Amino acid sequence: MDKAYGDFVALVKELYALDQVASCIGWDEETFMPPGAVMDRAIQKSTLQGVIHEKLTSKKISDLIRSLEKSTKLNPDARVVVREVARRHRRATSIPKELVKEIAKTESLATEAWLKARKAKSFPQFEPMLKKMMGLKAKVAEHVGYEDRPYDALLDEYEPYMKTVEVESLFSRFRDKLVPLVSKILNCSTQLNEKAACGDFPIKMQDEFIRAVVKDMGYDFDHGRMDISAHPFTIGTGRDVRITVRYDEKNLRPATFAAIHEAGHGLYEQGFLEKYYHTPLAESISLGIHESQSRLWENIVARGMPFWKYYYPKLKAVFPAMESVPLAEFHKSINAVQRSYIRVEADEVTYNLHIMLRFEVENAIFEGKLKVHEIPSFWNERFTNYLGLKVPDDAMGCLQDIHWAIGAIGYFPTYSLGTIYATQLYNTVKKAIPDLEDQFAAGNFKGLLGWLRNNIHSQGKRYRATELIKKVTGEGLNEDYFLKYLKQKYGKIYGLSL
Amino acid sequence: MDKAYGDFVALVKELYALDQVASCIGWDEETFMPPGAVMDRAIQKSTLQGVIHEKLTSKKISDLIRSLEKSTKLNPDARVVVREVARRHRRATSIPKELVKEIAKTESLATEAWLKARKAKSFPQFEPMLKKMMGLKAKVAEHVGYEDRPYDALLDEYEPYMKTVEVESLFSRFRDKLVPLVSKILNCSTQLNEKAACGDFPIKMQDEFIRAVVKDMGYDFDHGRMDISAHPFTIGTGRDVRITVRYDEKNLRPATFAAIHEAGHGLYEQGFLEKYYHTPLAESISLGIHESQSRLWENIVARGMPFWKYYYPKLKAVFPAMESVPLAEFHKSINAVQRSYIRVEADEVTYNLHIMLRFEVENAIFEGKLKVHEIPSFWNERFTNYLGLKVPDDAMGCLQDIHWAIGAIGYFPTYSLGTIYATQLYNTVKKAIPDLEDQFAAGNFKGLLGWLRNNIHSQGKRYRATELIKKVTGEGLNEDYFLKYLKQKYGKIYGLSL
Repeated sequence: MDKAYGDFVALVKELYALDQVASCIGWDEETFMPPGAVMDRAIQKSTLQGVIHEKLTSKKISDLIRSLEKSTKLNPDARVVVREVARRHRRATSIPKELVKEIAKTESLATEAWLKARKAKSFPQFEPMLKKMMGLKAKVAEHVGYEDRPYDALLDEYEPYMKTVEVESLFSRFRDKLVPLVSKILNCSTQLNEKAACGDFPIKMQDEFIRAVVKDMGYDFDHGRMDISAHPFTIGTGRDVRITVRYDEKNLRPATFAAIHEAGHGLYEQGFLEKYYHTPLAESISLGIHESQSRLWENIVARGMPFWKYYYPKLKAVFPAMESVPLAEFHKSINAVQRSYIRVEADEVTYNLHIMLRFEVENAIFEGKLKVHEIPSFWNERFTNYLGLKVPDDAMGCLQDIHWAIGAIGYFPTYSLGTIYATQLYNTVKKAIPDLEDQFAAGNFKGLLGWLRNNIHSQGKRYRATELIKKVTGEGLNEDYFLKYLKQKYGKIYGLSL
Repeated sequence: MDKAYGDFVALVKELYALDQVASCIGWDEETFMPPGAVMDRAIQKSTLQGVIHEKLTSKKISDLIRSLEKSTKLNPDARVVVREVARRHRRATSIPKELVKEIAKTESLATEAWLKARKAKSFPQFEPMLKKMMGLKAKVAEHVGYEDRPYDALLDEYEPYMKTVEVESLFSRFRDKLVPLVSKILNCSTQLNEKAACGDFPIKMQDEFIRAVVKDMGYDFDHGRMDISAHPFTIGTGRDVRITVRYDEKNLRPATFAAIHEAGHGLYEQGFLEKYYHTPLAESISLGIHESQSRLWENIVARGMPFWKYYYPKLKAVFPAMESVPLAEFHKSINAVQRSYIRVEADEVTYNLHIMLRFEVENAIFEGKLKVHEIPSFWNERFTNYLGLKVPDDAMGCLQDIHWAIGAIGYFPTYSLGTIYATQLYNTVKKAIPDLEDQFAAGNFKGLLGWLRNNIHSQGKRYRATELIKKVTGEGLNEDYFLKYLKQKYGKIYGLSL
């Protein structure tokens, strides 16, 4: 390996180490930071981000990238490292520092406005700041550049290499198939006992139970921890991958499925190869692929019957509240499909309609087909079409998510991409390991984890998301696996022929 | 205020914000970091320190300092900020980067060697690395520069502006008065029931009790927290000041006095003025002054009778184990004076002899009067002279502390300086608030805290340590207040006329 590459890798290592520091103080902020320290933490974060930006856009790294991109001596690993760091470098370099600062300032102001507007259930209170944020993001798109659609430049931050037209055509097919399916389920006469998983569940006992579950999944507590935060999340920093959950003493589900979801993210991060640490080869491909891991574990594995064949007796032993609830009823209760306004509370069937609606809003805005002030009427109309519910107010509608206030435009599609990736991967692993679900029923997840480690985790950013999916499953992005999964699972649960 | 000062303060703010980030990840390392993350954290810390060093030694800050030092337009606050940042800048600039790196590397190797040597109770196993470290520290002293003694340059890192000769003459007087006093107490026939504070003390209940105590002292949990770590410590980062303790289920003392000690440090950090945040005016003067705060609260206040007049009934109500122990006996038990080998377990009477011995070793080494291989015999001989105990092996002797392995030469004297500062301050505050101890007996610490806030905490680094002591107490560093305090307190406890 030549000297330039050595110098380059040393700089990259510093960058990743500082990213890890940023993750650690971000984790601290959400878990243990005293309430009075908010302002200090904001200054610390922006100073650190300034340092990272300086390093990422330095002339030194720029010169090295240019020379390494011309080099013919790099091995395949090195080419990935150069390619991906160059992408990050160019994106950072293309956005003027002043614009970055203005976005950061607008994030704070817009979040404040959003909180007030949501409380007042009044979109107009949020509108001026959202308009400003959308304008700034449009500027970002112009600076970053795009071949086809401005939204491409935003989407690329969360789902690298993915194009708007791909999402557009995928979601359009997907929506047309999903809406009638959802309607059939929601309009059928079968009533599930949604309250079956409710009762008294002391937090300490929930904690013990779910720790055992995620440990069985393969989550490594010597290189991780599980704590409490208002919104569950995962941070991965090399040998230190932490997850969080939140508890509801009257309901098992929030903590259990949050823990399994986050452990799915955590297993991905814990599955990077040590030899690649501090490089893009030990980094997730995209939010979509990240989400495919969490949703595969949470929905396909842990809302499945084989999983609970193993865990339900253990759960009953811990929680007397469950004694009178048969396994079948419990299984149905954790898979109840419902009309609901709030995305984060939606079941896996309706969830994607919530996502597609948000993408449609963002896409229409950046195509100039929708003005910010028209969002509520656009939202409410489509929401009724997709879910058959009339939105009572903006707080239950287009004001429910923080994403737009913090400028996370292009983020939403990754949730549904993850869902689709997940079922495609699961379809493949089931073929590779025919007794996979028997293994789950015996509390054995080694087969699944091993397959994910080999095929997904260990690859880091070597391939693009769709490239990896094609390489592993033999075909491109295809929503039909998810739809087939829904039909089989929910046909059975609801006694319907879907 | 001129533009140069504005630019300077902006740079200084970045430096302090990055220092705070370093503190936060250091805290995390000692409290919640998964065990497997040690190597990653080491890389993160050294990368961050590299960034801080770069910023601190930049041409930009150097030019600003030079121009501001000549300015006649600065107000007194600004002059302190420039003076203290300039000191830090010059120290950092004077030490070559290569030397800093070699010290960091040697720290790891020396710590490893020290751990092994201590386990094997064999100083010769540590000797080569210690010799190397001492050599590197001698180089540091040459680079930093000194007027009189090389040790000055090392001491200055922990106790700024203090000179070796001052410590030398202070400690020499102090030791000559303390040794006979200790001998009288240790050789008297009075036997204290040292076990009075032992029993069954569930951690949860200890935690509740000491949280209430430090809250009463004035420690603010909205801007702080208390967690568990192997060695108790405090970090202060603006509005976020955290303390740690460790528990012994069979003994109340470790956690109780650690919490009060650390809360003493924490109150100092919480007492800086917000308007000075991110400058040396919101930073401790020296380790000695820091330690004066912790020792004042831990020893003078919380090992005193008035304090326990208020808390002992509360303690008894929580812990049935204490029911049969009268207050007087409990008070004596937490003040038992003993011959002991280990510094961190020593009582407040003998503690300073442990410190002075360490200073004598360091001072002799840097004066060229002692070779590293002669440390054990030097140590053991003086230890017997001061404490009347024969050192059984090096682990109980000169291998007990980590300080030398991590290159913290010049640190030890600050513990005794803190003790002396503390009694001088306490003598003054008692004159200012005649009913001070009656206030303690009523659980009221507002008078003491208010006085410390006004006179010490709010000053930051405005004055040098000895300057501040003189300003506040009316006289210079004087060991006699501590000796008088010991004679009064321990004369009573041991029924001796001292």
